[in-house]
Amino acid sequence: MARSEGNLAQGRSYRAFDVDSVKDYVAAQGELTERLGTAAAGELRAREVGDGNLNLVFIVEGPGGAVVVKQALPYVRLVGDSWPLPLKRAYFEWNALTRQATHQPQRLPGLFHFDPVNALIVMEYLTPHVILRKELIAGKRFGHLAEHMGTFLAETLFRSSDFCLAAAKKKADMALFADNVELCAITENLVFTEPYFDAPLNRWTRPQLDGPVLSLRRDRAAKVGAQEMLYRFTTKSEALLHGDLHTGSVMVTATDTRVIDPEFAFYGPMGFDIGAFLGNLYLAYFAQEGHEAYPDQRVPHREWLLETAESTWSVFSETFARLWREERGGILYPRTLYEDANDETGATIALHRFLHGVFEDVVGFAGAKMVRRLVGLAHVEDMESIEDLDRRATCEAKALLMGRELLVNRTTFGDIYGLSCLARAIRRERNLL
Amino acid sequence: MARSEGNLAQGRSYRAFDVDSVKDYVAAQGELTERLGTAAAGELRAREVGDGNLNLVFIVEGPGGAVVVKQALPYVRLVGDSWPLPLKRAYFEWNALTRQATHQPQRLPGLFHFDPVNALIVMEYLTPHVILRKELIAGKRFGHLAEHMGTFLAETLFRSSDFCLAAAKKKADMALFADNVELCAITENLVFTEPYFDAPLNRWTRPQLDGPVLSLRRDRAAKVGAQEMLYRFTTKSEALLHGDLHTGSVMVTATDTRVIDPEFAFYGPMGFDIGAFLGNLYLAYFAQEGHEAYPDQRVPHREWLLETAESTWSVFSETFARLWREERGGILYPRTLYEDANDETGATIALHRFLHGVFEDVVGFAGAKMVRRLVGLAHVEDMESIEDLDRRATCEAKALLMGRELLVNRTTFGDIYGLSCLARAIRRERNLL
Repeated sequence: MARSEGNLAQGRSYRAFDVDSVKDYVAAQGELTERLGTAAAGELRAREVGDGNLNLVFIVEGPGGAVVVKQALPYVRLVGDSWPLPLKRAYFEWNALTRQATHQPQRLPGLFHFDPVNALIVMEYLTPHVILRKELIAGKRFGHLAEHMGTFLAETLFRSSDFCLAAAKKKADMALFADNVELCAITENLVFTEPYFDAPLNRWTRPQLDGPVLSLRRDRAAKVGAQEMLYRFTTKSEALLHGDLHTGSVMVTATDTRVIDPEFAFYGPMGFDIGAFLGNLYLAYFAQEGHEAYPDQRVPHREWLLETAESTWSVFSETFARLWREERGGILYPRTLYEDANDETGATIALHRFLHGVFEDVVGFAGAKMVRRLVGLAHVEDMESIEDLDRRATCEAKALLMGRELLVNRTTFGDIYGLSCLARAIRRERNLL
Repeated sequence: MARSEGNLAQGRSYRAFDVDSVKDYVAAQGELTERLGTAAAGELRAREVGDGNLNLVFIVEGPGGAVVVKQALPYVRLVGDSWPLPLKRAYFEWNALTRQATHQPQRLPGLFHFDPVNALIVMEYLTPHVILRKELIAGKRFGHLAEHMGTFLAETLFRSSDFCLAAAKKKADMALFADNVELCAITENLVFTEPYFDAPLNRWTRPQLDGPVLSLRRDRAAKVGAQEMLYRFTTKSEALLHGDLHTGSVMVTATDTRVIDPEFAFYGPMGFDIGAFLGNLYLAYFAQEGHEAYPDQRVPHREWLLETAESTWSVFSETFARLWREERGGILYPRTLYEDANDETGATIALHRFLHGVFEDVVGFAGAKMVRRLVGLAHVEDMESIEDLDRRATCEAKALLMGRELLVNRTTFGDIYGLSCLARAIRRERNLL
């Protein structure tokens, strides 16, 4: 089923919309009429706002309201049509969104329409939400972020794992998402492998970072660490991941948080989603020095970023523990296993051994995600928006040092506070360049 | 494709053969005429020899030669038609056999014919081969066994892993075998879970083993160990496993070794196949005392069993290392990763870290496989054929102690020789009952 529906989307009726044709398309979808307040294309306004690497994104507004139309392009937008990418990724994104919506609807946009032929999803226009990454660059803080993200991670990961899903359902879902090959290949290559050798698409702040980049390419421990995390990425089929959970996939207001864009979804290691989010918080942390108007202007913001990483993990693990107690209906650690079906001690021993393993993965994946954003193809605006290249490179060198340390010594961190401690120590480093 | 072909086999034209109808069926298969020396059912002789838990097995002989016909039954033969089991398992067995045959044809029976509707495989009649387990009980030794099994394991596991297969091919294969749900469920329940609580189908030597069985059911560390191995079984999609590689799935002569019956095949942890084989060698080791005509009659045979376990692992790891050097064509540790594409040091560091992890799994899975054969539903003839129940229970209690130790302390064994050492020490234990 996965394959045939996926292939359908690559059929000959696909067409990429523009700001005009998208109005006709949206107007023709009767299910959207009430939401937009019209069925007439002439009464709609549309603009293209996609700033990601892969897709077209339109906001289409009518007299009654607005929707977002996200359409996959048959190539990587960042690189151009020399890098084709299958349209079926919209199918996987829709399947991931609808599954996440059963677990955590309040953290997702509303889902209105899926068109597999045009590889297109119509969803809620989130307003006044903005992309979290941009707000972090601007030095803003969000008091609910850690609670929202930790809960989202725990609920989506636990509820798609063998701890909760029936075995047959989980295996079928794993098989469905196993066809998301090309998106996984992007991660496999760009995150775990290319940053560690002289790959043609790599970019870095030159010449300031030439030294650290050359060191990394001779760093056997870093290569082994990255490949070990790649092996876990490809073989550890624990839960349905978002697959690309950086701070550009999160939209926020002062009180709300929404997670978008799970087109990289597949069954992988839980630590990958958590590590992606934390790694991007640490990147934001090291970028702050580049955005300060005067030294230490952003001390509270920097500290808040570390506290958010800490709290995201602690909310994740506490929520996971609650789900472990309340929703453990899968084949793992069944209640019948214990003489006293409510054997809290036995279940708790097992839980904490499990979370210990997830934490090691979080650390390793956070490290891998940091390194790739500094010396691989795709960078982060946190760093790219620092115009002074010397200043930017200083921030990047510190982040690179932390990423490498997390990759190589991922087993040695006892808890999340150790990562904050390491970040603070590295930030005070001098003479890295 | 997997699903539709699998479901086909459950269609209404399936019929279970008997010793008469199987002759008509075989005679009608033109591709078998030359091998049998006739196309006339009247010239064929057939007998049913299945002694496994799940299937019918016929030997059909003609004037020119013989073939084996293995047919899946729609229920678990061991339990009866109250436990239905889908016929599509023959489809997975055939797919596993044909893949293994591309890696290691000399260790498999010849493959002649697959009929998905009748869930039936026609293959080479191996003669004078006998089931390894029976020979081990009889005290026979096989000088090539470790070499053959270590090589078979390394080649089938390496060549179906991300180290060798293209990522898209591996993901598609993983998805195909993910539908082998019911056979995986047998392992998930009977190996990892039911032995550790008062499950209705559990059996053990009563009343002699009542004490150890009760202890096991109160043993939180053993439960956690078994469930942690279950979690790896369900989530660690490393390689295409045989899935049931005990000494009853191996046929031997003095010079030859063949591996049969991979109907439990799926993408799982490499250590599961290796651990299954080793665990069954250790069961054979502890059973020897029950088969001795006088004390220490079988010392050389016992020692040979331990040496075979040791050599199977060392041949596996040496062969894996050779394949790592020569056939590493997958996405993991690509040669381009290293400045010197033949960086032996970098690749070797990575290899040994990887094998260290496989070894931990081997130990844990060997332990789980031992425990389930002593106190779960399915036992081994090595123990069951010891008629004196006190004597049998003494052997079983020692094997149970070893299995539990391997499960619980699997991370603490430095190498395979430690397992032999532990086996010898436990064998000398007195007063276990």
